[in-house]
Amino acid sequence: MEATIIAIGDELLLGKTVNNNAAYLSARLAAVGIGTRRQMVVGDRDDEIVAALEAARELAAIAVTTGGLGPTEDDRTLAAVASHLGRELVLHQPTLREIERRFARRGLTMPAVNVGQASVPAGARVLSNPLGTAPGLILEEEGFLLCLLPGVPAEMEYIFEHGFLPYLEKKGYAGERVLEKLLHATGLPESAVAERLAGVEVPAGLHLAFLPQAAQVDLRIWGTASDEGNFAERARPVIEAVRRELGEYIFGEDGTSLEEVVGELLGRRGETVAVAESCTGGLLAKRLTDVPGASAWFLGGVVAYANEAKTSLLGVPEETLVAHGAVSEEVARALAAGARERFGATYALAATGIAGPSGGTAEKPVGMVCLALAGADGVASTTQTFGGGRGWVRRRASQYALEMLRRHLREGER
Amino acid sequence: MEATIIAIGDELLLGKTVNNNAAYLSARLAAVGIGTRRQMVVGDRDDEIVAALEAARELAAIAVTTGGLGPTEDDRTLAAVASHLGRELVLHQPTLREIERRFARRGLTMPAVNVGQASVPAGARVLSNPLGTAPGLILEEEGFLLCLLPGVPAEMEYIFEHGFLPYLEKKGYAGERVLEKLLHATGLPESAVAERLAGVEVPAGLHLAFLPQAAQVDLRIWGTASDEGNFAERARPVIEAVRRELGEYIFGEDGTSLEEVVGELLGRRGETVAVAESCTGGLLAKRLTDVPGASAWFLGGVVAYANEAKTSLLGVPEETLVAHGAVSEEVARALAAGARERFGATYALAATGIAGPSGGTAEKPVGMVCLALAGADGVASTTQTFGGGRGWVRRRASQYALEMLRRHLREGER
Repeated sequence: MEATIIAIGDELLLGKTVNNNAAYLSARLAAVGIGTRRQMVVGDRDDEIVAALEAARELAAIAVTTGGLGPTEDDRTLAAVASHLGRELVLHQPTLREIERRFARRGLTMPAVNVGQASVPAGARVLSNPLGTAPGLILEEEGFLLCLLPGVPAEMEYIFEHGFLPYLEKKGYAGERVLEKLLHATGLPESAVAERLAGVEVPAGLHLAFLPQAAQVDLRIWGTASDEGNFAERARPVIEAVRRELGEYIFGEDGTSLEEVVGELLGRRGETVAVAESCTGGLLAKRLTDVPGASAWFLGGVVAYANEAKTSLLGVPEETLVAHGAVSEEVARALAAGARERFGATYALAATGIAGPSGGTAEKPVGMVCLALAGADGVASTTQTFGGGRGWVRRRASQYALEMLRRHLREGER
Repeated sequence: MEATIIAIGDELLLGKTVNNNAAYLSARLAAVGIGTRRQMVVGDRDDEIVAALEAARELAAIAVTTGGLGPTEDDRTLAAVASHLGRELVLHQPTLREIERRFARRGLTMPAVNVGQASVPAGARVLSNPLGTAPGLILEEEGFLLCLLPGVPAEMEYIFEHGFLPYLEKKGYAGERVLEKLLHATGLPESAVAERLAGVEVPAGLHLAFLPQAAQVDLRIWGTASDEGNFAERARPVIEAVRRELGEYIFGEDGTSLEEVVGELLGRRGETVAVAESCTGGLLAKRLTDVPGASAWFLGGVVAYANEAKTSLLGVPEETLVAHGAVSEEVARALAAGARERFGATYALAATGIAGPSGGTAEKPVGMVCLALAGADGVASTTQTFGGGRGWVRRRASQYALEMLRRHLREGER
C-alpha cells in the first residue's frame, strides 16, 4: 500500500517554510506499513491543486494533503478537491456549530468568512480538530482514499493521529511496518565503505542505505516486517556481514554519537579525559560536554590559540614551538602531555593544525592537522589532511581525535 | 520564468530527512525572480526519477534536482537523467582527475566506485564541487534547462551559488528579484520584538517577517524589486523604523553572527579576549574560533569542568568554591578574572551554570547560568535562567556572554 503526500501553500514554494509536514506524514505512514510514493508541493491555486490530485491518483491508492483549509481567500483546497471529485460543497452543520463554539468560548462571534471551513465536499467524513477551526476530511472513492489535513503542524499531527490513523487501521489499509537498524562508521570515506560492503548480500525486502555525515558514514539496514522479532531475524545476517566487513570502523549503533561512545567507555573504566585544542578551538570540549553527565569523565580543556597560552598553560617548551612550529606533531604531543598532567586526567587529546581559509603553506597546507593522544603508556600522534572548508576541517579533526581515543580504549578492553 | 525542484532520496520518502534543500532552492531562485511551480520528492529508483523529470518538463522551463549523485549503487540520478534525455554517460576526464586529486590530498587512492561520479550525460556542463566528489551538472535542451546538484546541503549550496546561479544570470533566466534586508536582534524574546514593531508601517509590496533563532530574532524586510537601488529606497523607512524601535538590541545585519561582530569590534580596537567555561564546555571558544582570522583577537580559553581545574588553571580560590558553590556569580567573576590574567587578554568571558538535564536544585535550577565579563575596569557579572534542553541552555548562555562583551565594546565606542 502506497501514499502520495501533497503539501499546499505559496510559502512553501517561496522557501519561507520548510516542509516538515511531509517528513512527519511519511514517517508515520511508514510506521504502519504505508510507503510514500511521492511528495509534492503546490501553490494556493485551484488548478495547481487539481493537477497534483490527478498526478497523485495515478501514483498511489492513498493521497494526503496538508494546508489550504483555512478561512481566507487563498485557502483553495476544499474548492479544488470538490471540483476534482465532481462533488458539491455542502454545509456540514456539526462542523459549523463546532467552529461557532470555538469563537464563543473566547467570547467572540464567528466571522462570516469561517463558514467556508464548514462547507465540505458532499460525502466527506469529518475528522474533528480540537486545536483549530479547520477540520480534517476523508473522501473515499473506488480505489482512491483522500485525506485533507490542515497545514498547521500541531493540528495536522493531532488529526492524523486521532482521526486518520485509526481509520487506516480500522479499514485495513495498514500493513507491515518499516523497521530499521543503524550502524555508525568512521575512519573510511563513503566510497571505501561501499567497496567493503559491495559483497554483502541483502535479501529481498531489505535495503542497505549509505548516509554520509561529516567524517562519518551511517549504514541503515531497513525493510518492512510484521514485527520487531521478524525484522531482527531477517536483518541479523546483513548486520553481521556489515560488522564483519567494517570491523572496528563501526563505533556505534542506533543514533549514538562518537562522543557518547567515548564517554561510555571512559565511565565504565572509571577513567577521565582532558583536551588541548588549537585549530579545533573548543569543538572537542564542546562535543564531549554535549553528552549529559560528561562531568563524570571529562575534566576540562585548554583552548591554546595563542602560542603564549600553549607555553604558559600547558608547558609546551618554547624551543619546540620555534624548532617545529605550532602545527607539528611535536607540539601536538607536548600539548597532550601538558593537558594530561595539568588536569590530572587518565588521557588527553590534542589538536593543532590549519583550519583555513588562510594560513596554509606548501608544506603545511590548509586542512593539515596534527593530533595526539597522551596516556599512562606514552603519547601517540598522527598528521592528517582534511578536506572541506574551515568548519569541515574542524569537525573532521575533532572526529579523528575522538576516534583515536575510542580505538585505544577498545584495545584496552580486549 | 518558473522552475520545478526534484529532491531524490529514499530518506526523504521515509521521513528520515526533512527537505531543507527544496526550501533553500526555492528561496534562492525567488531571489533572482524565478518562481517555483512545484516541488517533488521521489525515491532512489530510475523509473521514479524519470517520471518526475517528465512531469517537471511539462510544468516549467527549468528543473533542479538534488541528491542521487553519490558513488554508491543507490545513487541513480545520472543514469536516470541520461535515459530521460536519451544521452550516453561519458567519462569526464577533468572531473575524474579532480576526484583522484581529492583522495590523493588525503593520501588515499580513489576507489574504483568513484569513477561513476565522473561519468556524466554527454554534453553536460560540469559545475565543480570543492566540498565533495559529486560535481553539479547543467544539461540544456530546446526550452528545457536541467541542473543536477548533490544532496549534501553544503555541497548543494556551494554549487548553486558559485556555479548555477551565475549561469542563470549570464543566460538571462533571472527576472525581477525578490530582495531582502536582514536585521539580527538578541536580548528580547520574539513576542517582545513583535510588540515593539507592531506600529511599524510596511508599504505595499514589502513584507516584514520574524525569524526566531536560539537567543536571537532575525527580522527580514523583503519584496520584489527591479534592482538593489529601487529596493533599498523603498525599504529604507522600514529598516530605519525597525532600528529605531529595537535600538541596541540589533547587533548586526545580513547574516553576520554575534561572534563575527564581537571579533570585528575587538580587531578594530586592537584588543583581545579569552574565555573560561564550565557549563558551556567549549561552545564559547568554538563560536569565537568559527570566525576566520580569530587568532588576531582570540587568545584562548580554559574549559574548567572539574573544580580542581578551576583552581589550578584559573586560580579560583578553594574558599570561593566552597562558600558559594561552583555555580555562583562569585566563581564566574573569579573565572573571568583568572582567564584574563592567565591569557594576558584585554577581556575575558566566563560562564558557569547547570546545563542539565540533571544537577538542578530548588535554589539553583537547571538552566541557571552565572556569567561574567572581566576587563581593565573590573568585572561585571549576572545570573540568568535559560529555558530549553541542555543544548539550548548552552547556546543561549554563550549568546548572552557574547552580547555582554559586544555591549561593553559598543559603549566604549560612544
